[in-house]
Amino acid sequence: MKIAVDAMGGDYAPEVVVQGALQAASEWGVDITLVGQREAVEHAMENSARTPHIRVHHCTQQILMGEPPLKAIRQKKDSSIKVAFDLVKRGEADAVVSAGNSGALLAAGVLTLGRIKSVERPAFVGVLPGIQGDVILIDVGANVDCRPNHLFHFGVMAHAFALSCLGMKEPKIGLLSIGEEGRKGNEQVRLAHDLFAASDLHFVGNVEGRDILSGKVQIIVCDGFVGNVVLKLTEGLAEAMFKMLKEGMKDSLQIDSVPPSGAGILQWLGEKLDYAEQGGAPILGIKGVAIVCHGASPAKAIKNAIRTAALYVEKNIPERLARHMERFQTRPVQRALAG
Amino acid sequence: MKIAVDAMGGDYAPEVVVQGALQAASEWGVDITLVGQREAVEHAMENSARTPHIRVHHCTQQILMGEPPLKAIRQKKDSSIKVAFDLVKRGEADAVVSAGNSGALLAAGVLTLGRIKSVERPAFVGVLPGIQGDVILIDVGANVDCRPNHLFHFGVMAHAFALSCLGMKEPKIGLLSIGEEGRKGNEQVRLAHDLFAASDLHFVGNVEGRDILSGKVQIIVCDGFVGNVVLKLTEGLAEAMFKMLKEGMKDSLQIDSVPPSGAGILQWLGEKLDYAEQGGAPILGIKGVAIVCHGASPAKAIKNAIRTAALYVEKNIPERLARHMERFQTRPVQRALAG
Repeated sequence: MKIAVDAMGGDYAPEVVVQGALQAASEWGVDITLVGQREAVEHAMENSARTPHIRVHHCTQQILMGEPPLKAIRQKKDSSIKVAFDLVKRGEADAVVSAGNSGALLAAGVLTLGRIKSVERPAFVGVLPGIQGDVILIDVGANVDCRPNHLFHFGVMAHAFALSCLGMKEPKIGLLSIGEEGRKGNEQVRLAHDLFAASDLHFVGNVEGRDILSGKVQIIVCDGFVGNVVLKLTEGLAEAMFKMLKEGMKDSLQIDSVPPSGAGILQWLGEKLDYAEQGGAPILGIKGVAIVCHGASPAKAIKNAIRTAALYVEKNIPERLARHMERFQTRPVQRALAG
Repeated sequence: MKIAVDAMGGDYAPEVVVQGALQAASEWGVDITLVGQREAVEHAMENSARTPHIRVHHCTQQILMGEPPLKAIRQKKDSSIKVAFDLVKRGEADAVVSAGNSGALLAAGVLTLGRIKSVERPAFVGVLPGIQGDVILIDVGANVDCRPNHLFHFGVMAHAFALSCLGMKEPKIGLLSIGEEGRKGNEQVRLAHDLFAASDLHFVGNVEGRDILSGKVQIIVCDGFVGNVVLKLTEGLAEAMFKMLKEGMKDSLQIDSVPPSGAGILQWLGEKLDYAEQGGAPILGIKGVAIVCHGASPAKAIKNAIRTAALYVEKNIPERLARHMERFQTRPVQRALAG
């Protein structure tokens, strides 16, 4: 097992990425290949204890956050993102972890490893902390515009992911819309509703924003624009709540600082909602394992993303997804599109 | 001042709507016309103290939640929603408050009162409790698909609303997207970005989900699909937090029930995030005042929506919006579309 970590990706690369990788290597003994400019990466490792689990794979280029993804991947053949996927392609690594340009990661994944059969659009999957346990949100940013069958494929992939990775038994699937009735929403959602309704999945119909964390469903399907807003709002809200609560505690108790009992609650809430605990969002639908982290990921997020990547490799997630797609996709899509 | 309240609209109509109206009349002395089937409305008022501020305007029809809005408004001329707007049109009422079919409310508003000049698409505006004060979100459900100039008009209307209704001085405007760079997002957002950038508004560029409550901007523009999901997620999250916090307090303090200090905090948080405090979402862009409430509105929400409606009538909001549109809209839109 070897994870290729993009040492040049993210707002605090290479330092913070290298720290996260070193922590993962020492805590869990995962073998890691840091892909990046050797000098910069080794400089970032200077004050750390050496571990046999870490090696550096040199490359000369870097893709910046604002660069157009497809063009960047095609032109920068020696960029850390492209090279990390090349390592997986050649069997020299088992998975990619990166906090870099997410569009470029998606493009590199598709162009280098290929898509799983019948998945037109790979997607990023997010896991949110719901009231009654984890809630899977798909897509959280890979596809800003989607056709109905893309949304349906997201649901099938998330279903496989829920069973294989999160140990869910019979996850219920909802389609995110602005009303519960099947005719509510935009064109794309109305047609996707019919595809889901015709499938063998446990589809409960449309769900609304207020249902996202309620536990009504375990899988929520939406396009990548909406999903990205939802994911980031959830993170932002957690932070907002945290601050409001801290102020509210002080005000309501008429004190200047939060008492120990209150501090415990705040800590609990903070941990529950900390995106760094999650690590990152897997790309589902490509023939390999890749985890996309926040650009602003702290070392802990990188570390946890590496653990997640290792877990998905162990569980052979791409292979399971492929089998799942075979089982679910063709029949209902073609039936509904024909009907 | 007289508010026409749709007594037949909402999940708990007419009882809960009538309760809210009675509370508003007795607390604030607002004159209210309850529009609905006389027998049902009077039955709902049976056990309440009579007040001279309330009268009933009989109508025979009702538009249900799932009905196609435009068709319903055209066919059901004697529905409570249509009749309420007719009262405003004839000068027998000054505003409409309803927890009924929001699409039908929008259609009735546009068809009966007309649009403010140069507003192609009226919008619902929501106000969220941000870390640093109120945040205006527009559109929260009127338009699921928008063109770039619609988004720009939403921003101009929200700007007028912020100045006139919320007393903001120099509200900053952000366009909701999935990345801060201007080229991020979908086609509609990229073009709207250019319209805003060419205007005299205080436009700060794209904002992301995590910025919605952070106080980075006071006005957030998005299409009605995304805005509706965001609004309902915020409400749902507040509820989720509330429950998680309650459990977390008990767990972290190793107790069976929340202590008084904790209960105070929970109450504070609950009030801060209770949508019923807000009452409802105004329709901006029609020639009149109308407030759309949640279908599931409790009496308190109806009561507060009536207060909001009265305030907007007093401040002559539609007239102010019209002047504001004149000032901001034509130049930058035409310049940017031409360029």
